[in-house]
Amino acid sequence: MRIAWIGTGVMGRSMAGHLLDAGHELTVFTRTREKAAGLLQRGAKWSPGPKAAARDAEIVCIMVGHPRDVRQVALGPGGALRSMRPGTLLIDFTTSSPALARRIAAEAAERGVSALDAPVSGGDTGARNAALSIMAGGEESAFERARPLFERLGKTIVLHGPAGAGQHAKMVNQIMIASNMIGVCEGLLYARRAGLNPELVLASVGSGAAASWSLSNLAPRILRNDIEPGFYVEHFLKDLKIALEEARRMNMILPGLALARRLYARLAKLGAQKKGTQALVLALEDLQRTAGSGAGGTDAARR
Amino acid sequence: MRIAWIGTGVMGRSMAGHLLDAGHELTVFTRTREKAAGLLQRGAKWSPGPKAAARDAEIVCIMVGHPRDVRQVALGPGGALRSMRPGTLLIDFTTSSPALARRIAAEAAERGVSALDAPVSGGDTGARNAALSIMAGGEESAFERARPLFERLGKTIVLHGPAGAGQHAKMVNQIMIASNMIGVCEGLLYARRAGLNPELVLASVGSGAAASWSLSNLAPRILRNDIEPGFYVEHFLKDLKIALEEARRMNMILPGLALARRLYARLAKLGAQKKGTQALVLALEDLQRTAGSGAGGTDAARR
Repeated sequence: MRIAWIGTGVMGRSMAGHLLDAGHELTVFTRTREKAAGLLQRGAKWSPGPKAAARDAEIVCIMVGHPRDVRQVALGPGGALRSMRPGTLLIDFTTSSPALARRIAAEAAERGVSALDAPVSGGDTGARNAALSIMAGGEESAFERARPLFERLGKTIVLHGPAGAGQHAKMVNQIMIASNMIGVCEGLLYARRAGLNPELVLASVGSGAAASWSLSNLAPRILRNDIEPGFYVEHFLKDLKIALEEARRMNMILPGLALARRLYARLAKLGAQKKGTQALVLALEDLQRTAGSGAGGTDAARR
Repeated sequence: MRIAWIGTGVMGRSMAGHLLDAGHELTVFTRTREKAAGLLQRGAKWSPGPKAAARDAEIVCIMVGHPRDVRQVALGPGGALRSMRPGTLLIDFTTSSPALARRIAAEAAERGVSALDAPVSGGDTGARNAALSIMAGGEESAFERARPLFERLGKTIVLHGPAGAGQHAKMVNQIMIASNMIGVCEGLLYARRAGLNPELVLASVGSGAAASWSLSNLAPRILRNDIEPGFYVEHFLKDLKIALEEARRMNMILPGLALARRLYARLAKLGAQKKGTQALVLALEDLQRTAGSGAGGTDAARR
């Protein structure tokens, strides 16, 4: 199949590679051409922009960073939709806003183009091993058309409902991770402060009711002071903002999510945007410096 | 060995049973005699109070509900320490305060008695299957003496440091669970409100970075509206209060823990003390009723 791939960062590069391996004809565009070098060497064609890349494609895939990037490469003056032909399919793998996913689906429909939002979970390893969890939103016919492609990229592939539903499902994922990261980091800080050996504590708590992916995978990194990114703070913060905006739109109060957003915003202010999400422990350590001023936990967390 | 067992609730009963199975001579006392019936039928002797139960014991085990209960059965006028002889060992399996554990160890030492705090994790199933995680605090010699007994009750057995260290390790466990429960419940509420099928969402998020014991074991119960207790809200709330007091004592600010305590207190006010911890979703649903008043998430969570 002729596929255009827009965005070849850490995730997109691995994903696009699997499609090349499957024998698809790939045209790629990404902001920084060097990031596509590996794919170009393996036979992908370079294109100078999303609109040009999409022109002859049957399926256009997007995997960029922020909703503003999605808006630009999908809907902008040089965006993919400007050149996509009726009957083609646009898939956005970026974790972005459900509202934007609905807008893209609507604008696509006006041109006779189908659209799916299909954010993924599983990180760089999941992308590399084609073991992603793909959460899709859109029409069933479009989903079935995309399925063979999804099966090259992921293991858990679920259609959650109409346009935007994939993004909503991904928000659930991020909401759950966010509060859990707070618990893991607070627990480790408490352990240190109480004079415990955190390694021994992990041995005690790691296989019981406190067990979690974050505890197994990120707590050991925290103990080694390794805050290098598996998943970027700035991207997680973007996700939490989207989730919080959607929650507000639905008139929901989610205090754990709100707290996580405040703490990750504090972490970003400390300059950790390009660190991994486990760096949250730094924001909590920073918070401890305000302790002793008589401030309650939450007030201080707000500063 | 001659062992006194004080407190035969759901956990204590199973644990004491394993010691009977191992051939130990057991004397039991518990507030409600019927709760010891099974053990008495299997050969345990009844005793009218902690002091009497402890008189001839080489090891005295306590597994009760709250720190005030521990204080009473260990240190009170009718408490076990009043009759324990020098050279014997007191083990408190209750999740209780580190400060109380240190006080018990000090008062025990004055009488030539050794003491261990040894709270457990793993719930009723863990107790039944002798698969508990046992987090001990106290002197190494006492720990080694207790080890054969611990090995009859649990699988993960760790000495975390001096008196109180076991309780601190258990607090780490509860701190981690608390924030994670918020994330799991907020995620499920968001999923429902966004019109997603929560079962499909669990399929998508359950094996990725949001994976946790609570998500696998409690989220399905929440979806069936099953809030029956695996672990009681009132006991969890007690644990969170202890953790928060200890954190304050250490001059720490733990906003996730503080939020969890507020939400569980709200849940208890709704009358759910005897429900399972997954009932937290009810407190969050209740919180949604205050939404739309323009209140920010955290202010509302405080009410």
